[in-house]
Amino acid sequence: MLHTLKVRSREREELVEFTDAVQQKLTDSGEQQGIVVLYVQHTTAALTVNENADPDVPRDMLHLLRTLIPQHGMGFQHGEENSDAHIKASMLGSSVTIPFADGKLLLGRWQGIFLCEFDGGRERQVIMMLR
Amino acid sequence: MLHTLKVRSREREELVEFTDAVQQKLTDSGEQQGIVVLYVQHTTAALTVNENADPDVPRDMLHLLRTLIPQHGMGFQHGEENSDAHIKASMLGSSVTIPFADGKLLLGRWQGIFLCEFDGGRERQVIMMLR
Amino acid sequence: MLHTLKVRSREREELVEFTDAVQQKLTDSGEQQGIVVLYVQHTTAALTVNENADPDVPRDMLHLLRTLIPQHGMGFQHGEENSDAHIKASMLGSSVTIPFADGKLLLGRWQGIFLCEFDGGRERQVIMMLR
Repeated sequence: MLHTLKVRSREREELVEFTDAVQQKLTDSGEQQGIVVLYVQHTTAALTVNENADPDVPRDMLHLLRTLIPQHGMGFQHGEENSDAHIKASMLGSSVTIPFADGKLLLGRWQGIFLCEFDGGRERQVIMMLR
Repeated sequence: MLHTLKVRSREREELVEFTDAVQQKLTDSGEQQGIVVLYVQHTTAALTVNENADPDVPRDMLHLLRTLIPQHGMGFQHGEENSDAHIKASMLGSSVTIPFADGKLLLGRWQGIFLCEFDGGRERQVIMMLR
Repeated sequence: MLHTLKVRSREREELVEFTDAVQQKLTDSGEQQGIVVLYVQHTTAALTVNENADPDVPRDMLHLLRTLIPQHGMGFQHGEENSDAHIKASMLGSSVTIPFADGKLLLGRWQGIFLCEFDGGRERQVIMMLR
């Protein structure tokens, strides 16, 4: 099963949760057990799994990443002034792999799936494949 | 094949190797070729593959992460005082995927599989699935 | 389908693109839809997907990683003086997973697959498996 999910960001840096869209596509597929692979087709955005209960968690994460990897003042050569976004994207990674059983994502109690936007706001494409 | 492995940490921050448990489950399954997906169901722990020969390697890794992402003094808003753990978890990632052939994990000579504990000690759950 | 790709680095730190070799093996396999898992069998190298158009992007990434995680002066204990390389390797990760359809890697327009060398130059082994 292959789908393209669209995830919309509003800010330059933002963590956008889209767990429900993934579970819905999984339910629609009727598949019972396997892995979900999510893959972002962009070089200034990433995917991660983290806490979705307290919005301060994604906020603190963006704050820390911005402190370690600021957009300006690091001597970056790339002309588009988004080297910081490329680096953050590789640090968090272009894909997540999540097992499922009985048709449900095997997420822990506090886990949600996030698009990590580092050069938005934009509409981003995430490939979803079941194996 | 779907299993839940329990991995126990003792310290707040610790890399706990569990390669042998993964290879044992793989051997028990009788499967010969494919991928092992390991997935941690927590938001303040991660999984990684790195050197398991010299214990100074995991120690240096935790030391560096603590230097870059200290628990206190960064202006974190999340009330549980473990934002550092959430961020380290996303940086290292919630899953690892390792190919196997002839019933053996295709690890390099110096590679071991580690649970990365950032808010322990606790018992952590790792989902293991073969594909 | 299981292959070992050889990727050669020349510098201590270098991002070496090998997208074409992966697509060629995929084409040779005749497989139409699934996932490619790439896995590096080393503890001082990693794999990532990022922009392959402007060579300043990988250069900026190595520069930033070197700034955050210098080889010397951090109090590392590991005797081989390459703790920085081990840490960078875990931060970027030992594997990438990329979906394919119609026999083509579903990479975004600007995406390439890179070996991230942190303790070269060397010949590195990358396992490639299709599922």
